[in-house]
Amino acid sequence: MYSVCVRGHVMIAHSFRGELFGPAQRLHGATYVVDAEFRSRELGPEGVVIDIGRAAQALSAILEQLNFKNLDDDPAFANQNTTTEFLSRVVFERMKARIVAGELGPGSQGLAALRVTLHESHVAWAAYEGPLSSGVASA
Amino acid sequence: MYSVCVRGHVMIAHSFRGELFGPAQRLHGATYVVDAEFRSRELGPEGVVIDIGRAAQALSAILEQLNFKNLDDDPAFANQNTTTEFLSRVVFERMKARIVAGELGPGSQGLAALRVTLHESHVAWAAYEGPLSSGVASA
Amino acid sequence: MYSVCVRGHVMIAHSFRGELFGPAQRLHGATYVVDAEFRSRELGPEGVVIDIGRAAQALSAILEQLNFKNLDDDPAFANQNTTTEFLSRVVFERMKARIVAGELGPGSQGLAALRVTLHESHVAWAAYEGPLSSGVASA
Amino acid sequence: MYSVCVRGHVMIAHSFRGELFGPAQRLHGATYVVDAEFRSRELGPEGVVIDIGRAAQALSAILEQLNFKNLDDDPAFANQNTTTEFLSRVVFERMKARIVAGELGPGSQGLAALRVTLHESHVAWAAYEGPLSSGVASA
Amino acid sequence: MYSVCVRGHVMIAHSFRGELFGPAQRLHGATYVVDAEFRSRELGPEGVVIDIGRAAQALSAILEQLNFKNLDDDPAFANQNTTTEFLSRVVFERMKARIVAGELGPGSQGLAALRVTLHESHVAWAAYEGPLSSGVASA
Amino acid sequence: MYSVCVRGHVMIAHSFRGELFGPAQRLHGATYVVDAEFRSRELGPEGVVIDIGRAAQALSAILEQLNFKNLDDDPAFANQNTTTEFLSRVVFERMKARIVAGELGPGSQGLAALRVTLHESHVAWAAYEGPLSSGVASA
Repeated sequence: MYSVCVRGHVMIAHSFRGELFGPAQRLHGATYVVDAEFRSRELGPEGVVIDIGRAAQALSAILEQLNFKNLDDDPAFANQNTTTEFLSRVVFERMKARIVAGELGPGSQGLAALRVTLHESHVAWAAYEGPLSSGVASA
Repeated sequence: MYSVCVRGHVMIAHSFRGELFGPAQRLHGATYVVDAEFRSRELGPEGVVIDIGRAAQALSAILEQLNFKNLDDDPAFANQNTTTEFLSRVVFERMKARIVAGELGPGSQGLAALRVTLHESHVAWAAYEGPLSSGVASA
Repeated sequence: MYSVCVRGHVMIAHSFRGELFGPAQRLHGATYVVDAEFRSRELGPEGVVIDIGRAAQALSAILEQLNFKNLDDDPAFANQNTTTEFLSRVVFERMKARIVAGELGPGSQGLAALRVTLHESHVAWAAYEGPLSSGVASA
Repeated sequence: MYSVCVRGHVMIAHSFRGELFGPAQRLHGATYVVDAEFRSRELGPEGVVIDIGRAAQALSAILEQLNFKNLDDDPAFANQNTTTEFLSRVVFERMKARIVAGELGPGSQGLAALRVTLHESHVAWAAYEGPLSSGVASA
Repeated sequence: MYSVCVRGHVMIAHSFRGELFGPAQRLHGATYVVDAEFRSRELGPEGVVIDIGRAAQALSAILEQLNFKNLDDDPAFANQNTTTEFLSRVVFERMKARIVAGELGPGSQGLAALRVTLHESHVAWAAYEGPLSSGVASA
Repeated sequence: MYSVCVRGHVMIAHSFRGELFGPAQRLHGATYVVDAEFRSRELGPEGVVIDIGRAAQALSAILEQLNFKNLDDDPAFANQNTTTEFLSRVVFERMKARIVAGELGPGSQGLAALRVTLHESHVAWAAYEGPLSSGVASA
């Protein structure tokens, strides 16, 4: 199994509901350094898993929708705690939708799986991984 | 599959038995920067894999039992080389026991797998991963 | 010149005023990974620049005052853009005050300089450094 | 499942063929920081996955064959784009061959899988992983 | 003294002349992860050392001139070994010229010093630092 | 001012005397990831601060004297707490002696300063820097 990974980042505000979160119930924020790892069983004719330029652009476009925002005000996340693990899946699903829509190029149809990791500090990160349509993945 | 990971560290002394180890047969030591990655198929009602505060406390408590010690003197490791891979499993098993005992909160009962990584320098690390009781994991 | 550095982190929300900031004028947030580097010309009798335990506690206490907050609501920062460089100096001044007050132990009176660095992402950081009372520093 | 990982690096020149690559069609180069992760279900008698000294030597020898070269001139890569993902597999296959040949020691025969990761910058990496002869791996 | 730092990267080919360089006399290449640290004694009215957006754009433009090239073919470096330390100064001088030309905005005229660091691998880096026109710097 | 930096590491055991150190009074250990930064005002004829190969060899030789040892048993450190800051100076002085002895090549005589940093974990490091014979340095 091959992997190719690109990195971006996003800076957001939010707050959490539930005693579990202690002081994180207050409005605060985070920088997420985001890794998107694309997996494929085979290389395409050019010797690549995916067009890394398009992959980086897609990640950048997805993060731009979140960047410099208060996620508490985003209707897409109404009644949701935008935890790091939850946001990992949000980025996963939005990237998957772009892959399905063909935005990452024809070769991307052969991708087997995707893993999205959000680093929230030097001591904590979260991730979501799952299969893509045409592959058998490890989730 | 979701993951949440917390990081801690520990500073220990030890020595190894066996010609394989060359100069590491002498009493020496290491800093291990330790990552504990908790995996779950679903998010709990608050939108989390696990209570990250409790997870960090559990990792800290486990590392405290080893910290600032000569592992050659620890009866738990009698007749064992406390290599980085061996210690990865030690931390794994001790964390698993705390999960089973319910110390990480009720939601932790749904955890599928755990991966513990010990970074011993900028050029070497070891890990141990395995399934937890209620899940199907990648080990 | 000797240095000792300890690291912590803080997660905050804020917004900026001024066209210069573009989309960062909106309410957003950041994780700052914070390094506090203490400099001294000589080592104390125990062979240390400073009691590293007290230094880490002081950094933690300073960051706790900011953690999980919207800095736009903090009276201490009224009419101020809480940029990364500005916050570097805030942490610097608060640490300096604790040193002057003797909270880091008697040996800390001999510190020559302090440098505080805030990493806001994997591609940007800011810092503030300056002399402390009894030393000649590089600022 | 246990893992042990060692790190090395290599500095090469190359160029790519295909419009996909844009300016990377020109002769350029890269530093690859290379991680080789060895996986095993069990520890050997000394408490190790593999002789880490031999593993590091093998990685070093494999990278030495590529280091300080223009890969466009290497007959082994004729008519191939030496992309990061392609080179990940090259290192994987060369390490696998050394394992099969017994160069990493008798214990290495029980290795279940191998993962090779090439970091090409702070924002991109690629990897190849696959099973080894006697094990059942996650590829 | 305040600092603000932005990061970029560049991938180049080159070769060195002189027995000192051993195998690096052959055509090879490198990824340089590049940090540009801007230093100032005071903050501008918005609370910044420099317009970080313009700083990042300037670094990107400077690196673009080098990216995906064989530096042996660049007339600007004729009869020069483009070592990491030499290239650090090249980036320094090109950034300094942009600052002097006012490309980084009016506030940048008050910059005291600049430090450019090129990371060539996980085990080696080089840097060049020097004063800027209106300041007193540490070089 | 130019800098060139090389990295190595060392794994040692030791204990500290003094109530200040709390549990670190017990025999324990550390991995130190060690950076040696060489500074020079000018580049030599080949375009280098120093022969980086010789610099790396010298660092490796210095660290080899400490590696896989219990520093409590080293007569060179009798009645000394081998703290991270103390060891930073030890490596500094031993490297300085090699420079003075000409072991790093003739060009090294023009070095202005040296900074040695020991990273003891992901959250703490110490350093020592000072001038070398022929230069004016920042200590």
